[in-house]
Amino acid sequence: MPPVARAASKTESKHPLDSLSCDEIRIASNAVRLARKTPLFFRNVFNLEPPKIELVPFLEAERAGFPNPDTPRPPRRACAQYDVIENDGKRYYMESTIDLATGEEIATRVLQKHQRAAFTVDEFQEFIDSTLASPVFQRVVKDLELPVGWEVAIDPWPYGGSDVGPDYTARLTQLFCFARDMTKGNDDVNHYSYPLPICVVMDTMTRQVLRVERMATGGHDDIDTDFAVHHIEEGHPPPRKPTEHQRSAEYVPEMLDKPERTDFKPLDVVQPQGASFTVTDNGLVQWQKWRFRISFTPRECAVLHDIHYDNRSVVHRLSFSELTVPYCDPRPPHHRKQAFDFGDAGAGHTANNLGLGCDCLGAIKYLDAALVRADGEPSVAKNVICIHEQDDGILWKHTNIITERAVVVRDRKLVIQFILTLGNYEYIFAYHLDLAGGIYLETRPTGIMSPVAIDAGKTSPYGTIVGPGVLAQNHQHIFVVRIDAAIDGHANTVTVEDSLPMPIEPTRNPYSNSYYVESTTIKTSTHIDAAPMQNRVIKISNPSKRNPVSGRPVAYKFSPPATQLLLADPMSDIARRAKYARHHVWVTRHADYEYWAGGEFPSMAREEEGGCFDAAARQDSVEDQDVVVWAVFGFTHSPRVEDWPVMPAERFTLHLRPVDFFDGNPALDVPSKKNLASVLVDGKCGLA
Amino acid sequence: MPPVARAASKTESKHPLDSLSCDEIRIASNAVRLARKTPLFFRNVFNLEPPKIELVPFLEAERAGFPNPDTPRPPRRACAQYDVIENDGKRYYMESTIDLATGEEIATRVLQKHQRAAFTVDEFQEFIDSTLASPVFQRVVKDLELPVGWEVAIDPWPYGGSDVGPDYTARLTQLFCFARDMTKGNDDVNHYSYPLPICVVMDTMTRQVLRVERMATGGHDDIDTDFAVHHIEEGHPPPRKPTEHQRSAEYVPEMLDKPERTDFKPLDVVQPQGASFTVTDNGLVQWQKWRFRISFTPRECAVLHDIHYDNRSVVHRLSFSELTVPYCDPRPPHHRKQAFDFGDAGAGHTANNLGLGCDCLGAIKYLDAALVRADGEPSVAKNVICIHEQDDGILWKHTNIITERAVVVRDRKLVIQFILTLGNYEYIFAYHLDLAGGIYLETRPTGIMSPVAIDAGKTSPYGTIVGPGVLAQNHQHIFVVRIDAAIDGHANTVTVEDSLPMPIEPTRNPYSNSYYVESTTIKTSTHIDAAPMQNRVIKISNPSKRNPVSGRPVAYKFSPPATQLLLADPMSDIARRAKYARHHVWVTRHADYEYWAGGEFPSMAREEEGGCFDAAARQDSVEDQDVVVWAVFGFTHSPRVEDWPVMPAERFTLHLRPVDFFDGNPALDVPSKKNLASVLVDGKCGLA
Repeated sequence: MPPVARAASKTESKHPLDSLSCDEIRIASNAVRLARKTPLFFRNVFNLEPPKIELVPFLEAERAGFPNPDTPRPPRRACAQYDVIENDGKRYYMESTIDLATGEEIATRVLQKHQRAAFTVDEFQEFIDSTLASPVFQRVVKDLELPVGWEVAIDPWPYGGSDVGPDYTARLTQLFCFARDMTKGNDDVNHYSYPLPICVVMDTMTRQVLRVERMATGGHDDIDTDFAVHHIEEGHPPPRKPTEHQRSAEYVPEMLDKPERTDFKPLDVVQPQGASFTVTDNGLVQWQKWRFRISFTPRECAVLHDIHYDNRSVVHRLSFSELTVPYCDPRPPHHRKQAFDFGDAGAGHTANNLGLGCDCLGAIKYLDAALVRADGEPSVAKNVICIHEQDDGILWKHTNIITERAVVVRDRKLVIQFILTLGNYEYIFAYHLDLAGGIYLETRPTGIMSPVAIDAGKTSPYGTIVGPGVLAQNHQHIFVVRIDAAIDGHANTVTVEDSLPMPIEPTRNPYSNSYYVESTTIKTSTHIDAAPMQNRVIKISNPSKRNPVSGRPVAYKFSPPATQLLLADPMSDIARRAKYARHHVWVTRHADYEYWAGGEFPSMAREEEGGCFDAAARQDSVEDQDVVVWAVFGFTHSPRVEDWPVMPAERFTLHLRPVDFFDGNPALDVPSKKNLASVLVDGKCGLA
Repeated sequence: MPPVARAASKTESKHPLDSLSCDEIRIASNAVRLARKTPLFFRNVFNLEPPKIELVPFLEAERAGFPNPDTPRPPRRACAQYDVIENDGKRYYMESTIDLATGEEIATRVLQKHQRAAFTVDEFQEFIDSTLASPVFQRVVKDLELPVGWEVAIDPWPYGGSDVGPDYTARLTQLFCFARDMTKGNDDVNHYSYPLPICVVMDTMTRQVLRVERMATGGHDDIDTDFAVHHIEEGHPPPRKPTEHQRSAEYVPEMLDKPERTDFKPLDVVQPQGASFTVTDNGLVQWQKWRFRISFTPRECAVLHDIHYDNRSVVHRLSFSELTVPYCDPRPPHHRKQAFDFGDAGAGHTANNLGLGCDCLGAIKYLDAALVRADGEPSVAKNVICIHEQDDGILWKHTNIITERAVVVRDRKLVIQFILTLGNYEYIFAYHLDLAGGIYLETRPTGIMSPVAIDAGKTSPYGTIVGPGVLAQNHQHIFVVRIDAAIDGHANTVTVEDSLPMPIEPTRNPYSNSYYVESTTIKTSTHIDAAPMQNRVIKISNPSKRNPVSGRPVAYKFSPPATQLLLADPMSDIARRAKYARHHVWVTRHADYEYWAGGEFPSMAREEEGGCFDAAARQDSVEDQDVVVWAVFGFTHSPRVEDWPVMPAERFTLHLRPVDFFDGNPALDVPSKKNLASVLVDGKCGLA
């Protein structure tokens, strides 16, 4: 079958920002197979967004209704990421660009040895299977003398340490092990309540177990002995019967110690006329003057493009870029416990298949995504993104005290949500758009903490005892959002605005009640830190467009969330690998495909490469330029007992909003109708 | 009618924390009238909560089901606050305590001259009427040459300055004036878009206009002329036709420039089995293991008492204590523009009468409140507090990656809400309780900014031009929450916990990835500042109760919101009057009736007296004691054009939550049922 002819018919009507269809994935993997002629292990095949020089004119013409019918349509291209498997079984990682119209590979990229591909979920399963089949591992497990009928559950983790040396090119994984009490007859038994003090290190290229390490299990008084790395095969066996002092901690309803509450009555969201939004044309979303495209990528999951409000541009591309989770237990091997959940695994790969009535209420639109299987065939991930509306209390209200008439408008949000499961942890990510021109980026960590074993009765300086023999280690989560701003156009300027006390001055501030706003223009790419006590605001403005009322440049702004940055020492592996986590804000000049705050290849990296730090270090001019603003926020998680066994979601939000962008409150025209479905609890009001 | 006999029958079954009924208000005002025998002007009559020494044993006995039938019931008492009007028309402020069982005044308190009573809404109306009737004022208005058919609307404000001298005992009000275009035939025309450059100063005792001031109307280039105070009668007339360059800015739907949106479809919250909460016994609320009492006070509006979760004490009394709003325009008379919205006016007095289907969705319980009229008769304020449930997204989720089974529990909150209108501004206050033991204190400022006039075409360093000739001045809002904690009992300890980098140390932190938590016990009453970069947490623990799992004291904690504190110089009037606003947290020893962060009498005070600052200065021992924690958070508001004419609500939240208080996630037993009312937007899923 000639790939060229087939390709053309399937892609010509596609939008340049559409995610790949299953057919397009087949075209791309066929093209690569044809070009490589060796066995391949596919990792990702995804739409290669056109460079801005092609994309922006197309989007502008599209908004204008294509007045010129000859407006060029950017060629539709795919990027394929895969391992080439050589005759001797060795693998190397490679990328191809495929022209989807011609079905031909048009470019290739072979990575350097230290640039390691992200893992795939398929691959993780192979690591687990190889570990379970390993005689070394089987021997170690046998010696643990687990109770009869128990199994071992394994969590593969990226090998976060650089202790393999700078020129070592292996691609390793470390596997944390838990005991699974299968005698309870319920496959959903929570194995995380039985952490085992063993860690498997595997060469992912050969699927060989390199060693099994005995992990420390001491407490406050065992600091001297807990810092050694003990290879089990070198005569350092783990304790036998390590689960004897541990206890189950279940969360599935049928296994709870106490019955579910019976007084929790249903609360339904009903939209009798349906949703107020539409999703058309494979990802064009329109809601309440907002218009944007949504696409899916294997690494970022949901990405928002070309965000406009009332036909005015706000953001060109909005995404969650990275999330690193370093653990802060200083005892080996925990110094290697640092995940990059986007760059090591991929938000698109680990996104949940959402269920109607489970993850949101009301009228919901679900989006599927096409991923690639290891063999190059497409695989549809169902319902990985959901879109729905939420009521969020009062948006604005005023009561005229002369007439006593109140006008109230409710706050409605459009929520674009996806949820990742990364072994133990869950992350709920969402973009919220509101009626007043605001955009919120929200993340809620939940799920199960990754625990380790501790001896009976001991406590630890490195975390919290959340169950018998279970230590939940101190750790951090550092998120970063990428804002490719386009405030009424692509040439934008970033200013830092601080509110500062005005000095006492008899003629200018005689009552010393005044403050002033100090505004600093960012001229070259750099970083900025949060300064909440100065009410620091980051403003992204279009210096060539002025608000007709205030006379100031039209802008959007955000207050950098005042959260703690990375605690690890700047010279530590952890900090060098996540330089983006050293500051709250980075301002860089746009470069095509520079999406990754922590670098393109954080997996086993010794140092962040090509991330925020390097982009800022270019010292590009960023005044009245195409700027990208990166916002970093985090969560230092010293666990509570209440976080066990499943943690109530924490919540972190970045709020981008207009400042002198509009001529007044943009939500003034939202109907203030009384809701007729609301009822009195007992049919009457009042106490008195 | 003998008040004694009547009183006994009405009050004997009341709970000590019940708000007063109308009958009880009558008993109290009758008692005072009987005792004073002069004309009175009543301000407030409210339940005088029993001192803790009486209240706590009663509450404990109540929870135990009154095993001892002779448990003493605290005497039910009212506090009456009123002006005594003497024969010459002069007034002085006075308070009485009335035993409601006997109907007798049992104590009186005459205040010092510098302690001025809070205003009442009735009184404000009298100030407006007196101003409108004043020949001086009428002459000034006539000279303004407003368009035919226009009126003047007046906002009385507390006179926030101390420029009257320390021994001056007058009680003044300043009245800001706006033009009201009545030719439009709509009483809800927004007069705030026509600020007039005049300010009336009135003696509230005599209702006499003392002077009318001409306000500055200059811009950036008029700093030299704008600082003088010009009394209009002294030959400094305001500009004529001051509204000529201003334009209307309406928000009521029928007056909008553009029609309301038509694509905003209804979203209903339907609770087919009704609400999950009950309100019984005049204010006892029970919901999802939470049990607390709600009362109404004229100054605080809704107060939560005796908050228990699963029969364990968390907070004894929880309230919003004060809110100061200083304006930061240095030109007179704006240095006097500082409101204390609780102490100058009273949250209970200014609370909105909430409407079904207007201010919340779903099954709603409204509570009325009884206030007193100036003549001593009770007056029922309808629906001033509402209680309802809200869905708030996902509370916790985990997907077992082995079985792919997801368990999701939604976040439901119980919301206790009240909304204040203070002339132009609105504040939405709410207590939210969640299913995981968390308590949120939320406030959303909205409404209309208090604007001033500015000459045509000018801009100002002191604020934002939000409409032609309309300057919205820079200002701040500083809130304070009072937490009378009772973590598993009344003897509690406050610790400050910071997460700090662990120094590099070859044997203790060889990979420099670790951090440690530095915990500092607060031993004597003091203040604490937020330190988000150190992840500072304020923990309130019960040192005599340990968590059986972690071994740590049971506790609740909060992160002090990292918001900017008061910007005015510490020596300014503004800052001396609101010393509480200098720090984020105050820890004090409980004292009965010490409720007011900014002091009991902030009205025209030169200095905060008896507020947080003085309470902390006592240097009381607070370790393992009955502690009160005050949390201060604020909002520096440099206006946006988008905040006009009605401002989209800002949102600030304090989150109190358990830390090692429970033996695990307290929301584990919340049902994870699928919601059957959710629907697909278009009957189908997916894109691919």
